[in-house]
Amino acid sequence: MDNLWTDRFSTGIQQSTSSAIRDLLKVTEQPEMISFAGGLPAPECFPTEELTAAAERVLVERPVVALQYGPTEGYKPLREFLTSHVARLGISVPVEQLLITSGSQQALDLLGKLMIDPGALVAVEEPTYMGALQAWRPYQPRFATLPMDEEGLVVDALERLLQGGERPRFLYLVSSFQNPTGVTLSPERRHRLLEVATEYHLPIVEDDPYGELYYNSARPQPLAALDVELSGALRHIAYLSTFSKLLAPGLRVGWVAAPEELVSKLVQAKQGLDLHTGSLTQAMAYEACRDGLLDRHVPTIRSTYHTRRDTMLEALELHMPKDVKWTRPKGGMFIWLTLPTHIDTTLLLQTSLDQKVAFVPGAAFHANGGGTNTLRLNFSHSTPERITQGVTRLGRAIEALL
Amino acid sequence: MDNLWTDRFSTGIQQSTSSAIRDLLKVTEQPEMISFAGGLPAPECFPTEELTAAAERVLVERPVVALQYGPTEGYKPLREFLTSHVARLGISVPVEQLLITSGSQQALDLLGKLMIDPGALVAVEEPTYMGALQAWRPYQPRFATLPMDEEGLVVDALERLLQGGERPRFLYLVSSFQNPTGVTLSPERRHRLLEVATEYHLPIVEDDPYGELYYNSARPQPLAALDVELSGALRHIAYLSTFSKLLAPGLRVGWVAAPEELVSKLVQAKQGLDLHTGSLTQAMAYEACRDGLLDRHVPTIRSTYHTRRDTMLEALELHMPKDVKWTRPKGGMFIWLTLPTHIDTTLLLQTSLDQKVAFVPGAAFHANGGGTNTLRLNFSHSTPERITQGVTRLGRAIEALL
Repeated sequence: MDNLWTDRFSTGIQQSTSSAIRDLLKVTEQPEMISFAGGLPAPECFPTEELTAAAERVLVERPVVALQYGPTEGYKPLREFLTSHVARLGISVPVEQLLITSGSQQALDLLGKLMIDPGALVAVEEPTYMGALQAWRPYQPRFATLPMDEEGLVVDALERLLQGGERPRFLYLVSSFQNPTGVTLSPERRHRLLEVATEYHLPIVEDDPYGELYYNSARPQPLAALDVELSGALRHIAYLSTFSKLLAPGLRVGWVAAPEELVSKLVQAKQGLDLHTGSLTQAMAYEACRDGLLDRHVPTIRSTYHTRRDTMLEALELHMPKDVKWTRPKGGMFIWLTLPTHIDTTLLLQTSLDQKVAFVPGAAFHANGGGTNTLRLNFSHSTPERITQGVTRLGRAIEALL
Repeated sequence: MDNLWTDRFSTGIQQSTSSAIRDLLKVTEQPEMISFAGGLPAPECFPTEELTAAAERVLVERPVVALQYGPTEGYKPLREFLTSHVARLGISVPVEQLLITSGSQQALDLLGKLMIDPGALVAVEEPTYMGALQAWRPYQPRFATLPMDEEGLVVDALERLLQGGERPRFLYLVSSFQNPTGVTLSPERRHRLLEVATEYHLPIVEDDPYGELYYNSARPQPLAALDVELSGALRHIAYLSTFSKLLAPGLRVGWVAAPEELVSKLVQAKQGLDLHTGSLTQAMAYEACRDGLLDRHVPTIRSTYHTRRDTMLEALELHMPKDVKWTRPKGGMFIWLTLPTHIDTTLLLQTSLDQKVAFVPGAAFHANGGGTNTLRLNFSHSTPERITQGVTRLGRAIEALL
């Protein structure tokens, strides 16, 4: 019988299905394909020499640290480095409140395991990061979707939800240069959001993988920093970030700064997940960063992506039919397109792939359905030439459906 | 209020508590402490030079493979290598049925997520690997504990459970040189177990991290190989193994070979967990192993641990009071002690730590309580001199309680 295993799958798993990103990435491996689909950093921006030197130093000087089992909390010198890194953003926490995770994705899974029972309510932006939905669906939450505008999350909508008596386990948001829209929560909204969180006793999961990738103005102040400022300590926010966009995603090193009672439980749950994050890659990240690599290196990433964003915005201006609208992000890696409502971007994807250009249909970022006329474009991974060429192709594919 | 986060913890997490291993490892960091507690490989057995050379080659020759996001299934050349590695053991599967995980621990968590609903029954050996219990408790299973003797799992007890109408989601066992007892399932029992699994339609999770560490006779045939032999294909078994004991645990690279319908769902769930296992460490493991490192290197580990096991068995013979019994493992990393029933090994641990020797109290390996007069000793991580000294100290600590 073929159902020896599948008959016994858990309820949460039976309900979850394969992700669009995953299926897409397979098609986009063809070299002639211009892919705006993945959320990939530009490999030419990886600090390969510095990481190679770091790997050599660590393996020669501290082989046991690099190769033996390590503590679940993470490699202590890296945790200390990251504690000062987040303190520079205004997030002052003791090292005990900083946990290393196997990428930010693991932090999302951990938070799902800790905070979600079947049927529990989780508040998310609409649209939101699809990887968060994917991490949490097996825990079977209900999602409350909150609208966004050009200033980010509409906090009034959250307040109405809470006034109506709903008590979400937490609110999840990507506060700066959001995935998928590129939109950033405005300073006024950040203040307002923390007032609401304080009044209604609402935990917030702030995902901030893109905050350092700002192209026009200063780095947005994390909500977590504002919480420290207003509450006197980190109270309402679990702050997530990662080396994936600053060094290299293949290292799989992220971090969480959060209130002590949450971190201690995250550590306990992480033990059951993978014992600890890779020892070598943690030691490499520390070795590479200890003498200020981020301050030297991240400006080169910003400069490269700044050009690519400008190129994509110009190409959209030139090649999009007039009924198409898009966001103008001040940082990050993504632009969000809204097409006339009768266009289904999942169908558009088929014709686009024929024209050798790929994107992610927006429906995947909607927790409760909808968004069928939206799509996400990534501008960090393609050269300016390919961005122009790809947007031209996409314009033609859309035109054909109008 | 201090309960902003903890008030919202999920039911499964509220019920799980911190692990004894974890708390112990903190105390055992003192240099004068002789620790038989951790399940650590000997760092002097790490192939450090080969791994350093592999890291350099990978980062210089294929930096994008090592540093970019990678496929959830794992690095293709490594999956192909491991497919031939498990085929040599008799586990013939196509590469599509082999998934890379972030250590075997992640495979345990994934299987919990896939197969366990609250209240679902999971059959385990008594005692069993505490990390499996820790991975699964947040999913709130009931555990059916099955007795073991010197031939391993008592299959008759499993059959009685199944005859009684119970239908566990799966049976979990460490088939060779078990953690914690060191006991190996006999060839007769392996045949019998597969007959029972076939008759009662029972999935089996076979955890085999220690199978290559054999000191007296040949490598035990994995249950998965027997399943392929008897069923014509891998049907009843999800087979788990890892580089942690063959190369180095700090890499966090393990693998699962399993029926296709299970692997495809494991891949989908793993995406939500951490997107993929570290790219660099996978590429390093492949680069190190492709020219036959395991065949050259693993015999040196066997030889080192063989001596250490013999040293510990001799020291036990000399220094244990006469009412203490212990297993005589033919491989692996652990020996299991049974003390007179009135001795509580959690209390013994306190006096042992005063004498600067550590172990893991056996209760932690019992899913449903009991085992308070048992304990686990690790012999792989300490030099023969320290093994003799540590067992002498332990003998004195036990003597004092008799």
